[in-house]
Amino acid sequence: MALKKKPVTGMKDILPGEMELRDYLMDIIKETYSSYGFTPIATPAVEHIENLSSKQGGDNEKLIFKILKRGEKLKLDTAESDMDISDSGLRYDLTLPLSRYYANNQANLPLPFKAVQIGSVWRAERPQKGRFRQFTQCDIDIIGDGSYLAEVELILATTTALSRACPGHRFTVRINDRAILRAMVEFAGFEEGRSDEVFIILDKMDKIGLEGVKSELEGAGFDPSSVEKYLALFGNLVEDDISLRELGEKLGAVSKPEAIDNIASIMELINSCKNADYDVVFDPTLVRGMGYYTGTIFEVSMEGFAGSVAGGGRYDKMIGRFTGKDTPACGFSIGFERIIGILTDSDFKPEAENTKKAYLYEKGMDIERMALILKKAQEDRLSGNKVLVSVMNKNKKFQKEQLIAQNYELFEEFYIKEWNKD
Amino acid sequence: MALKKKPVTGMKDILPGEMELRDYLMDIIKETYSSYGFTPIATPAVEHIENLSSKQGGDNEKLIFKILKRGEKLKLDTAESDMDISDSGLRYDLTLPLSRYYANNQANLPLPFKAVQIGSVWRAERPQKGRFRQFTQCDIDIIGDGSYLAEVELILATTTALSRACPGHRFTVRINDRAILRAMVEFAGFEEGRSDEVFIILDKMDKIGLEGVKSELEGAGFDPSSVEKYLALFGNLVEDDISLRELGEKLGAVSKPEAIDNIASIMELINSCKNADYDVVFDPTLVRGMGYYTGTIFEVSMEGFAGSVAGGGRYDKMIGRFTGKDTPACGFSIGFERIIGILTDSDFKPEAENTKKAYLYEKGMDIERMALILKKAQEDRLSGNKVLVSVMNKNKKFQKEQLIAQNYELFEEFYIKEWNKD
Repeated sequence: MALKKKPVTGMKDILPGEMELRDYLMDIIKETYSSYGFTPIATPAVEHIENLSSKQGGDNEKLIFKILKRGEKLKLDTAESDMDISDSGLRYDLTLPLSRYYANNQANLPLPFKAVQIGSVWRAERPQKGRFRQFTQCDIDIIGDGSYLAEVELILATTTALSRACPGHRFTVRINDRAILRAMVEFAGFEEGRSDEVFIILDKMDKIGLEGVKSELEGAGFDPSSVEKYLALFGNLVEDDISLRELGEKLGAVSKPEAIDNIASIMELINSCKNADYDVVFDPTLVRGMGYYTGTIFEVSMEGFAGSVAGGGRYDKMIGRFTGKDTPACGFSIGFERIIGILTDSDFKPEAENTKKAYLYEKGMDIERMALILKKAQEDRLSGNKVLVSVMNKNKKFQKEQLIAQNYELFEEFYIKEWNKD
Repeated sequence: MALKKKPVTGMKDILPGEMELRDYLMDIIKETYSSYGFTPIATPAVEHIENLSSKQGGDNEKLIFKILKRGEKLKLDTAESDMDISDSGLRYDLTLPLSRYYANNQANLPLPFKAVQIGSVWRAERPQKGRFRQFTQCDIDIIGDGSYLAEVELILATTTALSRACPGHRFTVRINDRAILRAMVEFAGFEEGRSDEVFIILDKMDKIGLEGVKSELEGAGFDPSSVEKYLALFGNLVEDDISLRELGEKLGAVSKPEAIDNIASIMELINSCKNADYDVVFDPTLVRGMGYYTGTIFEVSMEGFAGSVAGGGRYDKMIGRFTGKDTPACGFSIGFERIIGILTDSDFKPEAENTKKAYLYEKGMDIERMALILKKAQEDRLSGNKVLVSVMNKNKKFQKEQLIAQNYELFEEFYIKEWNKD
């Protein structure tokens, strides 16, 4: 029986052209994060099923690829649900494994700990164009720093990487705080315990607008006067730090002055230290889905592309789930696959660093001549060139076209006949 | 309930020190293989269970991490074995996925195709010291070249990478051919169909010696006169090309002159083109376990370390399992984790390329001063340094010791008091 040629549903083979782009982006991200003092770490792709199902991951927990128990531990007869036959699964993000990693290794790690982690994550989402079930995440996190300087360093590092990777693309950093989101809900007088419902609807603001949010809130049975009071808070806000202060004043008694000062400080520091041309704005409609965020949340949007290209926030309670002791933590994740998509859509080609040469030899070349060709290739490589040595195909023209598409610039051809003359 | 801090059984968190070594090794391997014209590719970590269980992987197929079917496809009630509830699994090597990749994408790939693939593989082996259930493989493969020049390029590239990565470690390339192994078994007159048993015992030669192999073969019930005839073939062979020719003469009628010429040509070309100091030897006791090899097989052993640090061979029948049409293929895999082990055991430290500086600021620094510190850091980074900005801990001495262990060389300290004086 023939084996299956296609990748498993929703996953993909990466062809040489895309791989070149991925390596280019990966190198920029690694180099930039390293210059900011982030230390590379790695965690296993496989994680305890208990950790993956601990309500830290929101909807992602529904999308886990579960791994079967092995040997005697697999008891099919008595199994009632998939949790009885699974002991582990593929990680759906890098934040949960990082928190476990920190809890497990903190005695051997500096404090504060600045980590960069790049790796694959897996989610069994319904397959759709441009969305894959295995994809790369690039996260930086600062653990052990509860001050806004963590946010500032994360934003400076991420925006530096983005501006290097996507020259010519304008982007904006949006920032909000969970405490402000909660205060606004409280101010409006929505029922306690229904704030997550409000956030889910608010999150659609960029798609359905203020009127859309209004009708969805009313449709969900929220008190119309509360809805009105709530939406009035957004009414004439523009995305700047004056709006931030105005909102604080409107919220009055329920205002969270620390959260507001915090965001103001972050914006001030970013604006005075940034080394790329972008805006950082307060966005009271920014929600972000993950259940684990406890404070600031932020996202980067890029002109001309819907959705965000990076996102993150503060999750001061997650490490405590492992250690019993809360530890401040804040992270920022670049949407690696989004950026690859944007670079591909813009026909971006990374510049090659070394000359790529192809040596093509006629079939049937004897060993003495082959030795001369290979020696020449060896020397050429030592002097910094990339040299492919390949037999010449019958259709040499097509072969060379393919190689040119792979950025081969120089060709040397070796024929048996030629050498016979000498 | 507290979450689990330890990684899943047999897998590991990679700490910053090891990560630095891994990045160093990865960079050398990538750069070297790129200079030989190998094109990076990537395949999904998850593979069809049918492909993983297709008898291409020998014993590794017993070690697959199987992934559960999802949603309605998972029918626990009627499941009789784990194959009924699993549709995929984690790849146990990179060769099977590469073959599938080539079969799936050949219309868009050059021929011959030279690929480099680096990635994690998973095997549910019994946990033991230094062996992990997730580990990295670095493979190069040449598809579509049936000549010995494929072997020559693979060996030149791999040995160049090894000599760069492990300076000062002597190593030897051993080479054999499945056809020669089979011819020797035939010559000795062992029962047809039992050659695999003979190979498994022969494979222990380096551990138990000629006498050990003799007694195991006899113990397995092979005819003593055949055993004697078989072992006489190895008797006075030393590892050189004269032995190779001698063996060919001894084998007489059952000899495989093409295989012998092939190995001789490979050795001759390597010796005339190699750019590092190592030997390439014929080793008639080299077996290599994988069922899919069809011709040459080779391994690299490193002085002072048992086992091999790289291995590979020709597998001309695997791609045909996907396409219905055999395609020559040959690959070489560096034992990434073995090399990391050797570098660690030898206390090897990669040289840092950029200066690592730590800026330590006193807690409570106000925002104007913080802006000055961050601006200075930004400039320092732009000029090529790696700069960590961190709050100063109460135990500054310990903090600096930890940073020095992470190769931080320069420290700048910022105090509130100092700045007040100005």
